[in-house]
Amino acid sequence: MYKLHCFAQSGNSFKVAFLLRALGQAYEPVFVDFMNGASRDPAWREATNEMGEAPILEDGTRRITQSGAILSYLADKHGAYGGTTPEEKLEVLRWILFDNHKFTSYFASYRFSKSFGPVAPDPAVMAWLKGRLEVAYDIVNKHLAKTPFMVGNAPTIADFSLSGYAFYPEEENGLDLLNRYPHVAAWVARMQALPGWVAPYDLMPGDRILPKW
Amino acid sequence: MYKLHCFAQSGNSFKVAFLLRALGQAYEPVFVDFMNGASRDPAWREATNEMGEAPILEDGTRRITQSGAILSYLADKHGAYGGTTPEEKLEVLRWILFDNHKFTSYFASYRFSKSFGPVAPDPAVMAWLKGRLEVAYDIVNKHLAKTPFMVGNAPTIADFSLSGYAFYPEEENGLDLLNRYPHVAAWVARMQALPGWVAPYDLMPGDRILPKW
Repeated sequence: MYKLHCFAQSGNSFKVAFLLRALGQAYEPVFVDFMNGASRDPAWREATNEMGEAPILEDGTRRITQSGAILSYLADKHGAYGGTTPEEKLEVLRWILFDNHKFTSYFASYRFSKSFGPVAPDPAVMAWLKGRLEVAYDIVNKHLAKTPFMVGNAPTIADFSLSGYAFYPEEENGLDLLNRYPHVAAWVARMQALPGWVAPYDLMPGDRILPKW
Repeated sequence: MYKLHCFAQSGNSFKVAFLLRALGQAYEPVFVDFMNGASRDPAWREATNEMGEAPILEDGTRRITQSGAILSYLADKHGAYGGTTPEEKLEVLRWILFDNHKFTSYFASYRFSKSFGPVAPDPAVMAWLKGRLEVAYDIVNKHLAKTPFMVGNAPTIADFSLSGYAFYPEEENGLDLLNRYPHVAAWVARMQALPGWVAPYDLMPGDRILPKW
């Protein structure tokens, strides 16, 4: 059985947990106490992931990190959600890269600083991140005005990747994004209707933390 | 012949230009006047790349964007630099994702703000980016203490991706990174010794701009 190292607040972990459920694949969650610094421990990095991040997927003796790499591995292995042609597969990769570079990344940094960081967020940094994440949301919103899912007419791992953080309570970011980006909101609802969807805080281990700032 | 939409300051474009040269593939550069806002024009985005970024590779009627997707496409098509086993190919993807999320991304934002931005950089934002890019450099430096290239003993597109910005003049970032991360420096020298390497400002179209701030 798969093992998935994850924690409740990690939208990157949720991307994989949700895909495993959509694929009908059982897995054992392994709690990473990221919020208390477990992944900053050099011994954890040496043994588990030198990049210091969750999720990590164990499949027998294989150990894979980076949500985008895990999603690609699972889509290939189970023959689903990977796109149906070489052109689609490359488009899927293209959007997963955009997600990692600009969509999830700026949003996740903003949300973490806003709700979970060790110190009150710096206004200048938050304004910079907000500007960047809004540019990324605008690009995805415009794209989703023309297509129900990111690549073609059916969900792919590009959708699992980009939507991963959109299922968390909006109070954690306070940006009212789903009202402001209606095509993103409609697509989030389409993803939420897929088999296996469960709210992140009901799915992954770790205590819920209320916004701190 | 390939066409590569690119501009001199773009390390992401350089990743692809360098790989094309290492593969012995001719290409026609197409200048993107990014530094003067060409890629923010809605008409350019509609016609060329909705993500508003360079590089873009044209291969006949195909048009591919995101440096990581282009590198993967070229490695597959030419059967080189992609890794030799499924395990290596997944490791290559894993590092390309890390590069897009944390290594190139924070560094490129820092360098752009430091040298080329329209206004003087905000000290709080620069301190935040510097902290993040140093964490990423430390992870890559530790990894390169154990291996000559990112995945296995030969260069792959993971190396082309991660090293793309390291060939620009250090005065553009002012962080003295190659002295501070010696395993990164040794690897950059190994990449620079590959066939086809040319300094970015000698390779791609667009005027050199001296650091503004």
